[in-house]
Amino acid sequence: MKLCLVITTRGNYAKVKSIIQAAENDPDVELQIIVGGGAILAKYGNIADSLTTMGVNVDRRIHFLVEGETPVTMAKSAGLAVSEFTTAFENLQPDVVMVIADRFECLSIAMTASYMNIPVAHMEGGEVSGSIDESIRHAITKLSHVHFPATQEAADRIIRMGEAPETVFPVGATSLDVIAGLDLDNLQPIMEKQASAGVGARVDLTQPYLTVIQHPVTTEYAENLEHVNQTLNAIHELGMGTIWIWPNMDAGSDGISKGIRIFREKHVDAPMHFFKSLPIEHYAPLLKNAQAIVGNSSSGIREAAFLGTPCVNIGSRQSGRDRSVNIIDVGYDKAEIKAAIQKQLDHGRYEENHMWGDGKAGPKILDVLKTFDFTIQKRICY
Amino acid sequence: MKLCLVITTRGNYAKVKSIIQAAENDPDVELQIIVGGGAILAKYGNIADSLTTMGVNVDRRIHFLVEGETPVTMAKSAGLAVSEFTTAFENLQPDVVMVIADRFECLSIAMTASYMNIPVAHMEGGEVSGSIDESIRHAITKLSHVHFPATQEAADRIIRMGEAPETVFPVGATSLDVIAGLDLDNLQPIMEKQASAGVGARVDLTQPYLTVIQHPVTTEYAENLEHVNQTLNAIHELGMGTIWIWPNMDAGSDGISKGIRIFREKHVDAPMHFFKSLPIEHYAPLLKNAQAIVGNSSSGIREAAFLGTPCVNIGSRQSGRDRSVNIIDVGYDKAEIKAAIQKQLDHGRYEENHMWGDGKAGPKILDVLKTFDFTIQKRICY
Amino acid sequence: MKLCLVITTRGNYAKVKSIIQAAENDPDVELQIIVGGGAILAKYGNIADSLTTMGVNVDRRIHFLVEGETPVTMAKSAGLAVSEFTTAFENLQPDVVMVIADRFECLSIAMTASYMNIPVAHMEGGEVSGSIDESIRHAITKLSHVHFPATQEAADRIIRMGEAPETVFPVGATSLDVIAGLDLDNLQPIMEKQASAGVGARVDLTQPYLTVIQHPVTTEYAENLEHVNQTLNAIHELGMGTIWIWPNMDAGSDGISKGIRIFREKHVDAPMHFFKSLPIEHYAPLLKNAQAIVGNSSSGIREAAFLGTPCVNIGSRQSGRDRSVNIIDVGYDKAEIKAAIQKQLDHGRYEENHMWGDGKAGPKILDVLKTFDFTIQKRICY
Amino acid sequence: MKLCLVITTRGNYAKVKSIIQAAENDPDVELQIIVGGGAILAKYGNIADSLTTMGVNVDRRIHFLVEGETPVTMAKSAGLAVSEFTTAFENLQPDVVMVIADRFECLSIAMTASYMNIPVAHMEGGEVSGSIDESIRHAITKLSHVHFPATQEAADRIIRMGEAPETVFPVGATSLDVIAGLDLDNLQPIMEKQASAGVGARVDLTQPYLTVIQHPVTTEYAENLEHVNQTLNAIHELGMGTIWIWPNMDAGSDGISKGIRIFREKHVDAPMHFFKSLPIEHYAPLLKNAQAIVGNSSSGIREAAFLGTPCVNIGSRQSGRDRSVNIIDVGYDKAEIKAAIQKQLDHGRYEENHMWGDGKAGPKILDVLKTFDFTIQKRICY
Repeated sequence: MKLCLVITTRGNYAKVKSIIQAAENDPDVELQIIVGGGAILAKYGNIADSLTTMGVNVDRRIHFLVEGETPVTMAKSAGLAVSEFTTAFENLQPDVVMVIADRFECLSIAMTASYMNIPVAHMEGGEVSGSIDESIRHAITKLSHVHFPATQEAADRIIRMGEAPETVFPVGATSLDVIAGLDLDNLQPIMEKQASAGVGARVDLTQPYLTVIQHPVTTEYAENLEHVNQTLNAIHELGMGTIWIWPNMDAGSDGISKGIRIFREKHVDAPMHFFKSLPIEHYAPLLKNAQAIVGNSSSGIREAAFLGTPCVNIGSRQSGRDRSVNIIDVGYDKAEIKAAIQKQLDHGRYEENHMWGDGKAGPKILDVLKTFDFTIQKRICY
Repeated sequence: MKLCLVITTRGNYAKVKSIIQAAENDPDVELQIIVGGGAILAKYGNIADSLTTMGVNVDRRIHFLVEGETPVTMAKSAGLAVSEFTTAFENLQPDVVMVIADRFECLSIAMTASYMNIPVAHMEGGEVSGSIDESIRHAITKLSHVHFPATQEAADRIIRMGEAPETVFPVGATSLDVIAGLDLDNLQPIMEKQASAGVGARVDLTQPYLTVIQHPVTTEYAENLEHVNQTLNAIHELGMGTIWIWPNMDAGSDGISKGIRIFREKHVDAPMHFFKSLPIEHYAPLLKNAQAIVGNSSSGIREAAFLGTPCVNIGSRQSGRDRSVNIIDVGYDKAEIKAAIQKQLDHGRYEENHMWGDGKAGPKILDVLKTFDFTIQKRICY
Repeated sequence: MKLCLVITTRGNYAKVKSIIQAAENDPDVELQIIVGGGAILAKYGNIADSLTTMGVNVDRRIHFLVEGETPVTMAKSAGLAVSEFTTAFENLQPDVVMVIADRFECLSIAMTASYMNIPVAHMEGGEVSGSIDESIRHAITKLSHVHFPATQEAADRIIRMGEAPETVFPVGATSLDVIAGLDLDNLQPIMEKQASAGVGARVDLTQPYLTVIQHPVTTEYAENLEHVNQTLNAIHELGMGTIWIWPNMDAGSDGISKGIRIFREKHVDAPMHFFKSLPIEHYAPLLKNAQAIVGNSSSGIREAAFLGTPCVNIGSRQSGRDRSVNIIDVGYDKAEIKAAIQKQLDHGRYEENHMWGDGKAGPKILDVLKTFDFTIQKRICY
Repeated sequence: MKLCLVITTRGNYAKVKSIIQAAENDPDVELQIIVGGGAILAKYGNIADSLTTMGVNVDRRIHFLVEGETPVTMAKSAGLAVSEFTTAFENLQPDVVMVIADRFECLSIAMTASYMNIPVAHMEGGEVSGSIDESIRHAITKLSHVHFPATQEAADRIIRMGEAPETVFPVGATSLDVIAGLDLDNLQPIMEKQASAGVGARVDLTQPYLTVIQHPVTTEYAENLEHVNQTLNAIHELGMGTIWIWPNMDAGSDGISKGIRIFREKHVDAPMHFFKSLPIEHYAPLLKNAQAIVGNSSSGIREAAFLGTPCVNIGSRQSGRDRSVNIIDVGYDKAEIKAAIQKQLDHGRYEENHMWGDGKAGPKILDVLKTFDFTIQKRICY
């Protein structure tokens, strides 16, 4: 079986890592790896180069992002992605294409494969969230031939949408597979990495610290700038050491970046260190040992629950998503954010929760795909 | 309200005609009309030119078809469509975009509009059929903000897929609106048109005749050629006068065209006339008075049921679609096709059936859109 | 040396055939063959399939033609070609790309390669002609690193344009190489081919006959239709057997095709046979033995001069091009065309002329390329 | 006359400003302004927004840059530009399109217009320089219908390339028009601007200072980073106040940006201020009063000569370009750069030189265009 994995963000990589590892030891699986979009840009941390360094073969590098970060360029990028992935699939002739979650280019990829009569496998479908991701995720479900949702609840939704139950496999989230295999208490590497990577002060992680990731919410430049300002100032007033991770490219990420740059000019001595991206080997211990994860990353919902780390979730980006008890939801308001962080600091760590998976999703997915009898023609089940 | 109608096939035009008429008398509606794809190619009958001649303003003409008619060019065309419609929507700034049914470019259009935060209205969702259209149709549903299915059954499916019931309006098929307003017993124009348009013998429509439309089934050139050959020979052996309408552009239509061309070289005197396309004003009386409609056009399912015309439906293209009693389904086999036509000739006309609408769908759609309170952020209802 | 040949029309194939043959016996040359555009469309005769059948490996098939055949779609196609060839060159990593002559996509190809720092070799530069080809040809010269003009006169022009003399090699036209190696008096294959390919009457080639190729002149549909009508009627009135070869795809070829189709409906018994395309093995004997070649093909100027066949050259398409004495130039007028054909019939064959090459251009080109010391940075020589 | 100006970099704006001003008072000219590429990205300073603020209507904003800044993305961007400009020209129907100089997208624009039978006017052709610009510039000349070179020497080259002498108008550089009309001794605005825009220390411009602009040389990331490091350290060792202007987007600008960012992290107190871009009203006085302009900007060659400002020109980017006596050319070496700056400091200002124009080019261009009799069909003049 030629299984094509498509990686378009650094986050995607963590989600396919355990599949890559399982495939490497499996003579029945020929992996094809395409890295594209933000995942091959130096400014977000080029995943293709990292993979190559690690001895993993990258079959295609695909640029499809049209500069601009507005809804117009998002749509143009989506169109370009369709065109580019068509060529890649034509050349590589995969037996199945794995599409991850719900970013705008993922619908392009699912569309391209299905138009070319190539079966589509979809990870992390059936969830509920805010923003255009919500529409994209379910549209991908309707184009996909086999589904690997992270939770039973998501699997139930996929079936209710009319997908055949025998095509739905709630295997858990693959991102937890990677975490499950790591030494989560070793903060030394990330301590040292601050010397050579990222910008800002060097944060002492033996002391209580926060981790922040704040993505734009697919809207206005000015609004995103204002949102990040509220968070920056909340964190700054608390005065705790903070590791801040740059947002993904997305319509609006310019506003976030601008906010961070202006803040840094003014507060050159703030105890904050900013990374463009972190490999999961560094990120997971960082998340595990943080006093809290702040922002709107899905890792605050999912990985933090798995690890028991408190989360302050800001704004609408994760709204509707199934969640554990480790989360306090707040709006885009400095005072509110600050108060919620304080409350989490007072509470301390939570119990680990396995609703999102047991750390063995990757091998399960591979086992399903190897024997799955794909029918290209779909038919709604009612 | 700026309502953008997108017409990409001649069939689309019949489906929006009653909306255009209703909008012309409505000061609250500003129509934006985009004609693209097959609908602006001379070889399929340029709808944009027809509209302009009729005094209807065409705002944009969009070429997005990459020549080749393979799955690769279908996918490339879909990508190009996204890119081109992005520019059109950016320039026109519609309040809502109307997407029709389930062709490959329709998903491109729905995707583009939704990525640009423009509400999407979808006609003819919720149906069930074969081919990639099945996946496309439901994916469009998941991207759409308001739904105008043709039947109650389709409306129910849309709601089961998780769409909010208050966004689903089973108004009937708009294509029937046009038919309802026509003089269906006047065959004179189509009789005369044979002298100046199309190729082949001139068929006497005062005698019993057949109508044929056979589309490719999105697959192999050779297979489509074989399919059309079976139909051509079945018809030829029956020896009845036949009006044959050329297929839409689609991956595979080259095979159909080739089959017809070869047949015509060999049977230059066969009593068949071939049109590239017919306006609904000519097509509806032709369908109404035919002894049977043969092939795999949706008009055999829907318009023929509305009119009571017998239908011989060939192959898988319409499989799964709700249907009335006027249909005999057959495979791609000359003998089987011939026998089914004979059976319909013996049976004669059926009673008219309104399961697909009462001929007033267009005005109903406009009434809904004018007052509909669009929420860009969708959320699955379970 | 990895030499990438790009074939985008059937005519291109004849121009690279002797290079392919020479390369097959040369261990120092690794050929990369890309077939695209009109050359992979069934309706123009798929060259990629022919090559594969002949055991020649086709590395990439590239669709870049946007349907429509207007200046807008020509420009869109040129843009798409840039995007598609970028991917192909990225994957294939050629050492040099061979660009042929002056079609619209050739500038796209030269531009793409030069932007990617891949040396460009250009065949048939330095000539003078009408239409947009004139601008395209010289623009390609300014992007190319080594030049293979067909004549000394063309070589002189290239040098006058500021190209370094040591990069200009007047090797002759490669299309003549193929002809030089053929049995030019065997008309049997083309006689027989009429039974199985093309449409129209079967023409007896043992009797005096004409050959016609008429391309659109990159302008209006209606104008091209009128032009071809004049030619069709001139030929028809002469009543001679005629082999007519369909035009290349180009903005305007729809008009030509339509004219031919209408004519054929009316004159079903005219002694004309129409081929979509002919391999050079069939075309060369046909040209050699024709009473005259009529139309606006460059083969009337070049190959006909080499063979001594009289030519009636219609309209502006070949204007400005260097020419031998075998040509009578006429306008788009039935009477004028008819009179000129009659004059050529009266004159009979001309002496063979080698101003366009001696039939050994292909091997000469390969010899140059194998040792050429490419400098990517160009500099005008004054 | 509908004159379409295309602005794709901030530098372009200065080059068309005097044309815009002249056109505003001319009832015979209807301006169409397209702003695209780097000129509409916030990170380079959005020119479209500036124009709108100034009351100049922007007809289209076109995103065509594919993220990545490699030769592959440059080529992809060039292809996308062709596609996007086709739509813009189709909608705007200009009578003539003005193409500026020699960036990669300029060839796309010239190609698009000429394929659509729209006359092309070209500014700043006929010059000689390094990099791919050299090829691009001359290829654009071969596609253009009227030429506005900056110098007589450039005009002579254009004619030698085979362009008709009556289409060549050496009007001088339009960028000097703007400068000629400014108050060049008022440094107050740029002094104040440092408080609100850009990053870094605030530089006192009443003291001797340097101005630096260093673009990538279309090659390797690492090489560009090394180049900029040499310059940064040379300037730093001199210790003078410096206004540094960010490079244009181009394959390689990531390397330059990275170098600057790393330098700033290390030398937070260096007396340097970094602007993303400056309007010519601020840039011209800055250039006029600088002790020297350092780097590889064309403004060091041209505007600095016009103003008499000493220039230290680094590397190959401007090589081959006609130049005045104000320039010292150096390699990418810290010591060499430092020595050359010192030499210019010792020398002081030069005499003003008008070889590049007298400050009245814009109105001259408009006068020519208004009465020019365009012939779409070009023909080489030998």
